[in-house]
Amino acid sequence: MSRTPIGLAVIGAGYWGPNLVRNAQATPGMRLEYLCDLDVERARKVLGAYSTVRASGSLEEVLADPAVHAVAIATPAATHLQVAMAALEAGKHVLVEKPLAATLAEGQQLVAAARRRGLTLMLDHTYCYTAAVQHLRELVRGGGIGKVQYLDSVRINLGLVQPDVDVLWDLAPHDLSIFLSILPDDVTPIAVAAHGSDPIGAGRACVAHLTLQLTGGAMAHVHVNWLSPTKIRTMVIGGSARTVVWDDLQPAQRLSIYDRGVDRTDSNGNGDDARTRAIVSYRTGDMVAPALNEKEALRTMMAEFAASITEGRAPLTDGISGLRVLSILEAASASLAQGGAFMPVLDPSELPEEVSA
Amino acid sequence: MSRTPIGLAVIGAGYWGPNLVRNAQATPGMRLEYLCDLDVERARKVLGAYSTVRASGSLEEVLADPAVHAVAIATPAATHLQVAMAALEAGKHVLVEKPLAATLAEGQQLVAAARRRGLTLMLDHTYCYTAAVQHLRELVRGGGIGKVQYLDSVRINLGLVQPDVDVLWDLAPHDLSIFLSILPDDVTPIAVAAHGSDPIGAGRACVAHLTLQLTGGAMAHVHVNWLSPTKIRTMVIGGSARTVVWDDLQPAQRLSIYDRGVDRTDSNGNGDDARTRAIVSYRTGDMVAPALNEKEALRTMMAEFAASITEGRAPLTDGISGLRVLSILEAASASLAQGGAFMPVLDPSELPEEVSA
Amino acid sequence: MSRTPIGLAVIGAGYWGPNLVRNAQATPGMRLEYLCDLDVERARKVLGAYSTVRASGSLEEVLADPAVHAVAIATPAATHLQVAMAALEAGKHVLVEKPLAATLAEGQQLVAAARRRGLTLMLDHTYCYTAAVQHLRELVRGGGIGKVQYLDSVRINLGLVQPDVDVLWDLAPHDLSIFLSILPDDVTPIAVAAHGSDPIGAGRACVAHLTLQLTGGAMAHVHVNWLSPTKIRTMVIGGSARTVVWDDLQPAQRLSIYDRGVDRTDSNGNGDDARTRAIVSYRTGDMVAPALNEKEALRTMMAEFAASITEGRAPLTDGISGLRVLSILEAASASLAQGGAFMPVLDPSELPEEVSA
Amino acid sequence: MSRTPIGLAVIGAGYWGPNLVRNAQATPGMRLEYLCDLDVERARKVLGAYSTVRASGSLEEVLADPAVHAVAIATPAATHLQVAMAALEAGKHVLVEKPLAATLAEGQQLVAAARRRGLTLMLDHTYCYTAAVQHLRELVRGGGIGKVQYLDSVRINLGLVQPDVDVLWDLAPHDLSIFLSILPDDVTPIAVAAHGSDPIGAGRACVAHLTLQLTGGAMAHVHVNWLSPTKIRTMVIGGSARTVVWDDLQPAQRLSIYDRGVDRTDSNGNGDDARTRAIVSYRTGDMVAPALNEKEALRTMMAEFAASITEGRAPLTDGISGLRVLSILEAASASLAQGGAFMPVLDPSELPEEVSA
Repeated sequence: MSRTPIGLAVIGAGYWGPNLVRNAQATPGMRLEYLCDLDVERARKVLGAYSTVRASGSLEEVLADPAVHAVAIATPAATHLQVAMAALEAGKHVLVEKPLAATLAEGQQLVAAARRRGLTLMLDHTYCYTAAVQHLRELVRGGGIGKVQYLDSVRINLGLVQPDVDVLWDLAPHDLSIFLSILPDDVTPIAVAAHGSDPIGAGRACVAHLTLQLTGGAMAHVHVNWLSPTKIRTMVIGGSARTVVWDDLQPAQRLSIYDRGVDRTDSNGNGDDARTRAIVSYRTGDMVAPALNEKEALRTMMAEFAASITEGRAPLTDGISGLRVLSILEAASASLAQGGAFMPVLDPSELPEEVSA
Repeated sequence: MSRTPIGLAVIGAGYWGPNLVRNAQATPGMRLEYLCDLDVERARKVLGAYSTVRASGSLEEVLADPAVHAVAIATPAATHLQVAMAALEAGKHVLVEKPLAATLAEGQQLVAAARRRGLTLMLDHTYCYTAAVQHLRELVRGGGIGKVQYLDSVRINLGLVQPDVDVLWDLAPHDLSIFLSILPDDVTPIAVAAHGSDPIGAGRACVAHLTLQLTGGAMAHVHVNWLSPTKIRTMVIGGSARTVVWDDLQPAQRLSIYDRGVDRTDSNGNGDDARTRAIVSYRTGDMVAPALNEKEALRTMMAEFAASITEGRAPLTDGISGLRVLSILEAASASLAQGGAFMPVLDPSELPEEVSA
Repeated sequence: MSRTPIGLAVIGAGYWGPNLVRNAQATPGMRLEYLCDLDVERARKVLGAYSTVRASGSLEEVLADPAVHAVAIATPAATHLQVAMAALEAGKHVLVEKPLAATLAEGQQLVAAARRRGLTLMLDHTYCYTAAVQHLRELVRGGGIGKVQYLDSVRINLGLVQPDVDVLWDLAPHDLSIFLSILPDDVTPIAVAAHGSDPIGAGRACVAHLTLQLTGGAMAHVHVNWLSPTKIRTMVIGGSARTVVWDDLQPAQRLSIYDRGVDRTDSNGNGDDARTRAIVSYRTGDMVAPALNEKEALRTMMAEFAASITEGRAPLTDGISGLRVLSILEAASASLAQGGAFMPVLDPSELPEEVSA
Repeated sequence: MSRTPIGLAVIGAGYWGPNLVRNAQATPGMRLEYLCDLDVERARKVLGAYSTVRASGSLEEVLADPAVHAVAIATPAATHLQVAMAALEAGKHVLVEKPLAATLAEGQQLVAAARRRGLTLMLDHTYCYTAAVQHLRELVRGGGIGKVQYLDSVRINLGLVQPDVDVLWDLAPHDLSIFLSILPDDVTPIAVAAHGSDPIGAGRACVAHLTLQLTGGAMAHVHVNWLSPTKIRTMVIGGSARTVVWDDLQPAQRLSIYDRGVDRTDSNGNGDDARTRAIVSYRTGDMVAPALNEKEALRTMMAEFAASITEGRAPLTDGISGLRVLSILEAASASLAQGGAFMPVLDPSELPEEVSA
């Protein structure tokens, strides 16, 4: 017995849309019906001369088509509320490019709307679907590195200075969604401080540093930068038993798991400074680089979207994960505006009454 | 006509002292007379079975010997005031391992004492004597990268958890002394914020992040970490014309100078956000890795100590440079104690009256 | 006035064919008409559910279609003679995956047939269309590294053990076509020696080393290996003035041009050994990594195929370039069979009479 | 009860001698008595102004001193026979820098002389005493990588063009002594072919490639080069179960042990080509980088010299190991002179009668 495929429309033919088009076409159980962009010529150009997929310049037309069961939104963040809400109201499942919306409040409206209608709302946190993050998730949440001690992420590049958002909102959603994906449930961000600078006069921060306080006392740090001539994408997750270094630009050895670290030796000492040397010991063990089953992350993400619709379950990166990222970003922006003070991170899973109603 | 060599005593036979011993012996114009340590057996062991240099367990004996004209101090920072002051009062020139002293106030006492007696007081900021920093100094101060936009330094390693100081006081003096050495006179730290954590319960910060505000609006960041299983020592100095990446662990290509970056195009636009794309342009030019004339930095440092004594001039890394580092470290510690708020950095070149008197 | 696009059929839907399909669709002036494979289901699967391109299981059908002006062949080398000859006889221009044919004699038949009919015969030596090789070509042929002193290429990987050819025939065509593309006209291979081994009992060499003697006395070496757990793709081109290192797995710095080397100083000495030190000097200058204008090489290659047809000129990697590679490969195989003796490399540009007639 | 230390004289104060001096001084059970060089001023300069070790310009004086029980020879290879023979005849144990002698015949004389007198004759094959080679030795000889399939060593650098030997004799002894040290007893070189070139007109090969046939069918390859602007020191040892990559310039990860490779599947097939795919399978497992206990290799080597004398046993790198290297080098030189043909490698452990008598 064959199942009717999920009819999909991709909304937005800019930077990211073509990737969604390509991967939707390769996803079993999915049927790409439209690529929709206000600039229909741009949509036509993306589809090319050999495609049977329809280009459309009208969101209304697309949402009115009963062959469309779901939409994948790759428009600017400022438009997410309007586009995604229209899709939800038309009864369509929604996949939305990060960040979920321009503000936490807008994101909460979308989560509430999807809940009310029983529709899937999923975030395209692509990195969470890489083999590296999936391995990290099992390792870290599964206790393989012991107690999490610190996280450090660097994501710098000669990047496109965005016209609408600063470097934090542009790049940090990647790091934050990865943190949220791999950390155990009892290690969550509770406060964040941000420092930024705009040395080229772009009108927004082009270099920024985020420091997060996590429950349990660990610290996480994120460095994002649009101005670096070299590209770095590394994340270190330090644990009491092991420490992992993820270098995403080293395809032959993305993950390196070190049995190396500093341990505090339990002693009945009174902890005065002079005795510190005696109560610290060093491990210098082997390093293991696990074999990863590399596949295109976007392909895996699209398959999860299809599966979550078919199975009527929440996807791995659901609306709440999008709210959690927004919650940190808003706190970070507030910190930036106030000179770097730590700002509390709200738990967005507790939606305000009027929204969740 | 031959000149009498400078008689030197090295004080402290611990981690760093043996390096000073080795390099002092190879420095023309210098004559190593003593290695002095409270534990005279440790001094004897460092000197080995084949040396004509004297081991001594008594600082008094060493300072009383008229053959000793200068001392090089490699004892814990907490003892610097006492040891260096005794040496200065005995009329000896002083080279002191970083940091200058345990507090800014103590450092100021030493600077004042050296001034009163017309003696050389020099900091062993070793990195400032590497070929890389000397090249950077000429490049950055000479305008070769244009206006300084940002600095970013990472110094992480599985390092010795110090019994007396936190990771900031242990490692950041390197980064700070390098910043001060290469930055133009009109780009100086005015405020600093620090975040740190102690995930192993060592009793002091083992991971820390420093953010410095510089005059002119640029930001500098320093990441120091004792717990990392891998070693990283990189510094990026971003400029309006060029950006330099210094990777000290890549001996074949320590410095990479990129003609790559983001420029703000001058326009008569009104700067509204929608026009940002139009007023930013990207350079993607060649990279040059200059040939460096590598020599052991400690050798060059020791030669500078000898030359500054002989020529009666201030050394490149004089007492004031030591005070400037202490001034930033104290502000950073204050920020750490107060949850990460920015703290002003005092200009230590203006010594308080009672000290400079 | 618009020109009629070149109608193309891709023959072969295996490993390489899909890449040709994708790039042909994106090439201006070209119109992809068919993907042809004996296994028509495989062709359909490659085209996917959204394509307007026709799948065909019949080469005859495709060649009989007047809308097809050219074919791109990505079938096993053993079939190249038959497929390409059929296409040429049907009056189609031909692009063929490397190597041109299974033997030099077969390749010569194809070159002669294309000449007789005035059709384009082009080799898909993809690497020759990378920005790196194009830069190298200008640099080396243009005299930028001085006199060529040596070449060294390493291409090792955990690769697919081919069922029909050894590692030399599988991988060395890349290195050889690159050598031929970048070397000046007066530096050509005149003899080749090959060593190989089959440590896994695959029935053919899985590890091999090629040594080429070039006119002018320089030596070139190629190391190809299917069994290496790590991937290396580097080429060094040593010259009297500069030396270039190409590391194709380092996208941020593929080419490094060193002003570093050993020079023989002219002297009126008699050259006896004891004086050698005196007549050699060392340069240790800067390194420059030129900015490369990276594009997909296959796109550039396909554009060259279209342009050579439109303009009626020989393409950069024409049939002769394919013969030159075959000529070296045959000599290498002969050397391998004879224990590693140097074998002369025939100049295939002088086609035998009966072939070129 | 304390043992009398072994009195040592280092002969030769050139490039390598100072390293021997430094390490001899740090070796327990050894007492450095002399540094001897025809140019006694050079010896004095090496010892420096603070040493109690005697400089001497007379080998006779040194060998006549009963306090000298052993000598370490770091003079040019052409002088090894004369210097080492004089030492042996004076009853001194001998450590000699590689290669053992200028020819195999000379080396055989030294081995025979040491045997006759029951004296230690040891080669300073320094690499064999690194933690990396010691790990490799246990791993490879212990069966940890399965059956050895191939070896590949690259040792290239901008190196000193030697006045007396070509690049093979200068650099390949390192690779060959490492091979001999780590290979199982039943995998030994039986024939060697060499290709070389002298593109700068130095009068001797500056670039060379060695191919060795090993018993059991495996192949080893060595690439040595004085003209490379970049430094590479890697060795790959491929095995049926695992493959090791040793990158000596990556101190944080010198050894990488890959559970990755190509296996021939046992089958009852008849091995015809068309079935090859089916009978080959691929492993893509994890990689392990073992923690190495890094110490200065020369220190370990010197301790082995002392221990072999004290214990009256053969050292790890004894005279026979030196003969085996010479035997390969002589065969390689013969191959080079004859255009690259394979030349048999003699087993030097079977000394000719007149020599061993």
